Amino acid sequence: MTVDRPSFVTHLECSLTGERYEADQLHGLSRAGRPLLVRYDLASIRAFLPKAMLEARETDLWRWRELLPVRRTADIVSLGEIETPLIPLTKSGGPNVLVKDEGRLPTGSFKARGLVMAVAMAKALGVTRIAMPTNGNAGAALAAYATRCGIETIVFCPDDTPEINVREIALQGARVYRVNGLIDDCGAIVAKGAAQGLWFDFSTLKEPYRIEGKKTMGLELAAQFNWRLPQNIFYPTGGGTGLIGMWKAFDELEALGWIGAERPRMFAVQAAGCAPIVRAYEAGLDHAERWEDAATVAAGIRVPKAVGDFLILRAVRASGGKAMAVGDPAILKAVDDAAKQDGLLLCPEGGATLAAYREALRLGWIDEEESSVLFNCATGLKYPMPAAYKVVDRFAEIDLAAL
Amino acid sequence: MTVDRPSFVTHLECSLTGERYEADQLHGLSRAGRPLLVRYDLASIRAFLPKAMLEARETDLWRWRELLPVRRTADIVSLGEIETPLIPLTKSGGPNVLVKDEGRLPTGSFKARGLVMAVAMAKALGVTRIAMPTNGNAGAALAAYATRCGIETIVFCPDDTPEINVREIALQGARVYRVNGLIDDCGAIVAKGAAQGLWFDFSTLKEPYRIEGKKTMGLELAAQFNWRLPQNIFYPTGGGTGLIGMWKAFDELEALGWIGAERPRMFAVQAAGCAPIVRAYEAGLDHAERWEDAATVAAGIRVPKAVGDFLILRAVRASGGKAMAVGDPAILKAVDDAAKQDGLLLCPEGGATLAAYREALRLGWIDEEESSVLFNCATGLKYPMPAAYKVVDRFAEIDLAAL
Ligand SMILES: Cc1ncc(COP(=O)(O)O)c(C=O)c1O
Ligand SMILES: Cc1ncc(COP(=O)(O)O)c(C=O)c1O
Repeated sequence: MTVDRPSFVTHLECSLTGERYEADQLHGLSRAGRPLLVRYDLASIRAFLPKAMLEARETDLWRWRELLPVRRTADIVSLGEIETPLIPLTKSGGPNVLVKDEGRLPTGSFKARGLVMAVAMAKALGVTRIAMPTNGNAGAALAAYATRCGIETIVFCPDDTPEINVREIALQGARVYRVNGLIDDCGAIVAKGAAQGLWFDFSTLKEPYRIEGKKTMGLELAAQFNWRLPQNIFYPTGGGTGLIGMWKAFDELEALGWIGAERPRMFAVQAAGCAPIVRAYEAGLDHAERWEDAATVAAGIRVPKAVGDFLILRAVRASGGKAMAVGDPAILKAVDDAAKQDGLLLCPEGGATLAAYREALRLGWIDEEESSVLFNCATGLKYPMPAAYKVVDRFAEIDLAAL
Repeated sequence: MTVDRPSFVTHLECSLTGERYEADQLHGLSRAGRPLLVRYDLASIRAFLPKAMLEARETDLWRWRELLPVRRTADIVSLGEIETPLIPLTKSGGPNVLVKDEGRLPTGSFKARGLVMAVAMAKALGVTRIAMPTNGNAGAALAAYATRCGIETIVFCPDDTPEINVREIALQGARVYRVNGLIDDCGAIVAKGAAQGLWFDFSTLKEPYRIEGKKTMGLELAAQFNWRLPQNIFYPTGGGTGLIGMWKAFDELEALGWIGAERPRMFAVQAAGCAPIVRAYEAGLDHAERWEDAATVAAGIRVPKAVGDFLILRAVRASGGKAMAVGDPAILKAVDDAAKQDGLLLCPEGGATLAAYREALRLGWIDEEESSVLFNCATGLKYPMPAAYKVVDRFAEIDLAAL
């Protein structure tokens, strides 16, 4: 991580129109109001970085430096972005089910991947004040990294965001506001302040670098699967950055000659109470309408409208996967089963992927023999758990055999 | 992890008397009522395992297989025991302060190291029912691993154990009881049931293998520091397994010829409201009296009486370190400073090590130029955090510039 390495960014590109934007400048959405994607000189990376050289490096996120946008090592603000482990979920899942446990990252969620990158780029480009709408995890990651390098942060979250997330964000030095609305309502406030020049807008996909950080999930998977990919990926989809990022990662790896043309089926998993992408997928549309009255226990995927909707839908369709919704009862049962049968505590969004895996299996969309990866995007410890204990009086005569 | 590797355990040994016990049998404390230590044929390991071979392996805990007691790979029940990262704490700590962030391990604490080992051995030796007293983290790790391999678990914790720990333990399939007392009161219940043959006693140091798992903290540190060790280690000390384990690890590494005779100064950090080891250290004693009315925010180190007291004291003294106590206000301030200045959320026990580092610096016991490692033994997310947010009404005319 401390080694200086060349960077191969050539330019940025509108994900809808292909219009070209200069690198190393501050950008939000494209003129078409769509996400910008970072482009690299992949031919030069291919010549510069033999796969064996990559494999000899430490396994953390910075291993992928040539495929990332940060040019100067001094701009990297790290909290220890380790490669996350793959954990078999044999009993509650199946013989070939692996959970990618993203809860091991700094601040307990995969949001660290995107934010470590976006904050480094903001620092490099001279940003001093950032605002963000969040369902909790992204705000925590932003607060940690921005605080670490002295950037001021203001975070807006829905008023029913779990207390633990709000406290974590505040403790890590951000100013936090609860808003009577959902994440896109929070996003509207952030956009307004950005238009007034009060801060830089760090909403999902509204700045180009979070997706580059999230991309590392796909890069890691490829390395962990020894340059073949799993057959199915179940991803809990809110804004969809991770899914879009992985899809981009696979194309870049193919251009490097490290993987072939095969791709996993990408399953975009949403909650029945907030499934705009699923609705658009089933209707055969390219864009998704806002989902009204969104409600689910899986707060991280309670995103009524995603600015990258067409990118999610495109990847899902191209991969031969599906967008699918699961109900809250199935999510909660999946969380309980994984904990009680396999000793693994999933977050509700992770539970959603297990519920979706089961459903896909039941419907015959996938086979138990195929390798399937479920993304558990945050530590289960951040979420409410049912109470279940009894009391023992140490002064009383207790029949221990009856406990 | 899936590779079968030879095991080099020769026997077990009473840590007080040196009396020898057979390997591959179920053991509790020695006949002298003291912890048993596992011994290896280090000369054979030295011949079998060149350092370069070790370095070529993946970095997880099972990299150290030859120095661990599990003989059959099939007995390993893993949840992804990654090598934990070292994170600079520059602003709230100092230029050469690194936090070893143990909160990244399964179930969010370093207890996973000890329990993954103890459960594997229990499985290998045919145990079907385990009981344990816990301040929270150990119980969570036990529940996860035991559940994963179908061993029944019963856990007793002090009645003021944080709700999140209790719920986590229950969700992961253990039966949990809250007891009106401290951890040693819980331990007494467990001992009673074990005497009645109801379960196997998994209390700290009462079975010989948790310490072998905790030992990997020292092994990892040596590898991460490129086979020189840091100059100072600050360890939050309750039962002291980790400190004792690291000390043992260093001796074993020296026997392998991988490190020299130098050792870090070991600082055993306790809370002012529960400091039996510090009291014994200052009085020049070999054993520590029970601490009455123990009270501290750092629940993990609220251990009034440790069965391995003499081993802790011996290591601290031999290392040229100290046993030292810090008050709750200093602990809470350290947690706040690390979060607000360095974006790193410590658990209170981790905060205690930062407070102790500052105190040791102030007293001139150590120098800022020396490398110092602070152990953050659990994720800060498991602990209460102060509330600090404001509310914004999205329908109101808000002056965003004033936020
Ligand atoms: C735990 C968790 N899972 C999934 C998601 C959705 O991620 P994405 O925006 O990449 O779709 C989030 C986002 O907040 C999250 O916190
Ligand atoms: C977070 C934390 N730190 C430190 C300790 C003390 O560990 P040891 O028993 O090795 O002294 C514990 C034990 O419960 C703990 O949970």
